[in-house]
Amino acid sequence: MGSLYNRVADQLQGLIQDGVYRDGDRLPGVRVLSRQFGVSISTILQAHQTLEGRGFLEPRERSGYFVRRPRRPLAELTMSQGRARPVPASARDMALDLCSDAHKSLIPLARAVPHPDFLPVRQIQQATLWAARHGLEALDYAYPGKTVYRRQIAQRMTALGCLVAPDDIIATNGAQEAIIFALRAVTEPGDIVAVESPSYPGILQALEVVGLQVLEIPCHPTDGMSLEGLQLALEQWPVKACLTVTNHSNPMGARMSDQRKQALVTMLADAGVPLIEDDIYGDLQFEGERPRPAKAFDRTGQVIYCSSFSKTISPGLRLGWMIPGRFLPQARQQKYFSNLATATIPQLAVARMLEQGSYDRYLRTVRPRYKEALVRMRAAVAEAFPEGTAVSDPQGGFVLWVQMPAGVSATQLYHQAWDEGINIAPGPMFSTSDKYENCLRLNGANPWSDTVAGAIRRLGERATQLAREAP
Amino acid sequence: MGSLYNRVADQLQGLIQDGVYRDGDRLPGVRVLSRQFGVSISTILQAHQTLEGRGFLEPRERSGYFVRRPRRPLAELTMSQGRARPVPASARDMALDLCSDAHKSLIPLARAVPHPDFLPVRQIQQATLWAARHGLEALDYAYPGKTVYRRQIAQRMTALGCLVAPDDIIATNGAQEAIIFALRAVTEPGDIVAVESPSYPGILQALEVVGLQVLEIPCHPTDGMSLEGLQLALEQWPVKACLTVTNHSNPMGARMSDQRKQALVTMLADAGVPLIEDDIYGDLQFEGERPRPAKAFDRTGQVIYCSSFSKTISPGLRLGWMIPGRFLPQARQQKYFSNLATATIPQLAVARMLEQGSYDRYLRTVRPRYKEALVRMRAAVAEAFPEGTAVSDPQGGFVLWVQMPAGVSATQLYHQAWDEGINIAPGPMFSTSDKYENCLRLNGANPWSDTVAGAIRRLGERATQLAREAP
Repeated sequence: MGSLYNRVADQLQGLIQDGVYRDGDRLPGVRVLSRQFGVSISTILQAHQTLEGRGFLEPRERSGYFVRRPRRPLAELTMSQGRARPVPASARDMALDLCSDAHKSLIPLARAVPHPDFLPVRQIQQATLWAARHGLEALDYAYPGKTVYRRQIAQRMTALGCLVAPDDIIATNGAQEAIIFALRAVTEPGDIVAVESPSYPGILQALEVVGLQVLEIPCHPTDGMSLEGLQLALEQWPVKACLTVTNHSNPMGARMSDQRKQALVTMLADAGVPLIEDDIYGDLQFEGERPRPAKAFDRTGQVIYCSSFSKTISPGLRLGWMIPGRFLPQARQQKYFSNLATATIPQLAVARMLEQGSYDRYLRTVRPRYKEALVRMRAAVAEAFPEGTAVSDPQGGFVLWVQMPAGVSATQLYHQAWDEGINIAPGPMFSTSDKYENCLRLNGANPWSDTVAGAIRRLGERATQLAREAP
Repeated sequence: MGSLYNRVADQLQGLIQDGVYRDGDRLPGVRVLSRQFGVSISTILQAHQTLEGRGFLEPRERSGYFVRRPRRPLAELTMSQGRARPVPASARDMALDLCSDAHKSLIPLARAVPHPDFLPVRQIQQATLWAARHGLEALDYAYPGKTVYRRQIAQRMTALGCLVAPDDIIATNGAQEAIIFALRAVTEPGDIVAVESPSYPGILQALEVVGLQVLEIPCHPTDGMSLEGLQLALEQWPVKACLTVTNHSNPMGARMSDQRKQALVTMLADAGVPLIEDDIYGDLQFEGERPRPAKAFDRTGQVIYCSSFSKTISPGLRLGWMIPGRFLPQARQQKYFSNLATATIPQLAVARMLEQGSYDRYLRTVRPRYKEALVRMRAAVAEAFPEGTAVSDPQGGFVLWVQMPAGVSATQLYHQAWDEGINIAPGPMFSTSDKYENCLRLNGANPWSDTVAGAIRRLGERATQLAREAP
């Protein structure tokens, strides 16, 4: 899908990448292109601006647009490495820095939190006003979730191939809480849990809180967790659960195919190991049909599905849900004993947004915007970072995983950037080992601006300098 | 304080209890009483209705009001027994029944949840509307709590003698979550925690979730946790924390004096044992000044204060707070790792209610209503339950603790009541032992009605029958 000018921009970019237009070429005039593509002149002008943002065009005063291929092609992101043995989970101090007050004055390229410009603030507001006017007659504990909310979730999940009833669902304070309840429902402290590597820091934090051992499984940059690696781990270790982000993983941006999801579910069912699925980015796929969750292939009730609206509607709602399958009684008890229920007002407001269709309308507008944001940031990284840098190419979500040449320390870059007022998430945050020392994650969910462009440029300069000094 | 007619009713009741008016006496006419008390006739009529509700007056057609002393005086509530040794915490299944869908069709005398009639629903609504209009520009994670909310809490706590800054406070999903974070901050699984006995089931659930051992300390029905019992426990066992509800405890309704609070804090500080204070009922003291928390006597930062608005504004907000003292870093990490933050909208709405004074105005109206509700329910229990029954006489909150004669099983009564459509909380829910088998807790936060009156009557009949059959 996407807008018309984006499609034109994609086609023009293709022509540049295919060498039809070369570096330094002057692009045909707007009237010519308008006729050629059969679109209006203003659409061509918008496409030009888009390609300028992506780093493929350069305007020269009074002379029109000139082609400018990004300085060098990006390297290939490599398959990540797993960890040979389980180790106690322990999140990094840097993960806590993410929530310190100090970070608020920095350019926010670290946290996977969308800038309010990308969020449906007006729709939340309207839905909250509606909820306040119509839904507050009895603000009792909404345990295990308001029915209006759970009914909407059940409808959406059913549309994705997961046939669930409202009573199969528990409302949670975000996906983080759902993951923790899932872990507590199926493990004892000290147990081994297999996770993808690199892994979202919140997952490592959850494992630490529950007192578990983490076994990192290698991941393919676009296909997700290595099934061969997982199979090996299951044979070697008494793994008690497997935890993975199936769609547009954070930080790598991988998306498992349906076939691989099915294979994953079957492999784990055969081994009697529950799968904890985190699907918070699935709704943010850029194009085509929303990918199915692994839960859609669950025949034994062993998949515990976790998700939330933190990445789509807004993190401040603290509203997620879980579908615990055959672990429903344990998960319900976790919820009740831990904090009784999830706040009622956000549930009423989100149920309203789902029911009225404003959530789906919002998704249709935000998906191409995230795509554009990542294309632009990717081009800027390609332009600025040292040779040999690879960048992920996710088909959804809003984060980029940057792999710098070996020997370049993201931790050093992190500290240097902090001093310059830029916040990034260095690779070691995403693992219990130091193997991502040359990697970092960037948040693409910021409006593109001179500030952000300048920050990427400065990061690139610093990284280039570090590459020169590297042993 | 309280309204004029309530004061007149109290005085009249005193005259009856002192024997000035005896059982069967006809009360002087309204004009006489109006002159005697120096109040209007309508005030006298309201006082009559109040005393009728309390069971001290009986109207006879065309003849006025007659005195009717409750059938027999209540027995004295005895000091509770502690438990000789720590045992693994384990909540009862009946506690989970409280949140089952089935209970919703029953007369709700079990849960300590106010009927919406007692809640400031209109004020929440207005504050939520205000928050939706003015506060939603950035619905980011409010970690560790919205500043507007924490500033209001800091002001209130300071007024209670706890000098804290907004940054000393963490917003939580109710007090339950605060208690769990407090426990996790100061204990390891398997550690021993001293709690009051009988104890709020949520506390036993929290201890179970965290995997702790519970040591029950005896309690005085009005003075709270026995300091002698606690001292003994500290000498005998490696107690790692002490957890108590200092003001209007649930279920016993005890309130520690300032002197005892100070002694408690000092004793625990000397022993190096943190105190986890749960103060959710403090704002609901019926008369006089709001009691101080034990935290006001904390000189070492060893008191972790936990509270919420679940019993005052509404449980569905899921909004509480904690002041972790010197355990602030640990508690902050618990919050961040467990669910990142507490929902923003309830924080904005409650901050507004606190700032605008509507919370305090609401408290002024609801306190005498709770007093009246408990006086009435207490009289009804005295009237209906078998001889030898004792009932707590709390000075705040809205629950009653009923101690039936030894041998009468509250568990049996619970099941019989359930079959009759009445939900009560039997004594064993409040302990890890069976020592409260003859006790039950009643929720007084229901509008008085024929249904509620009838339920108490039927409970009394059943209990009387059980007393007859008792060995």
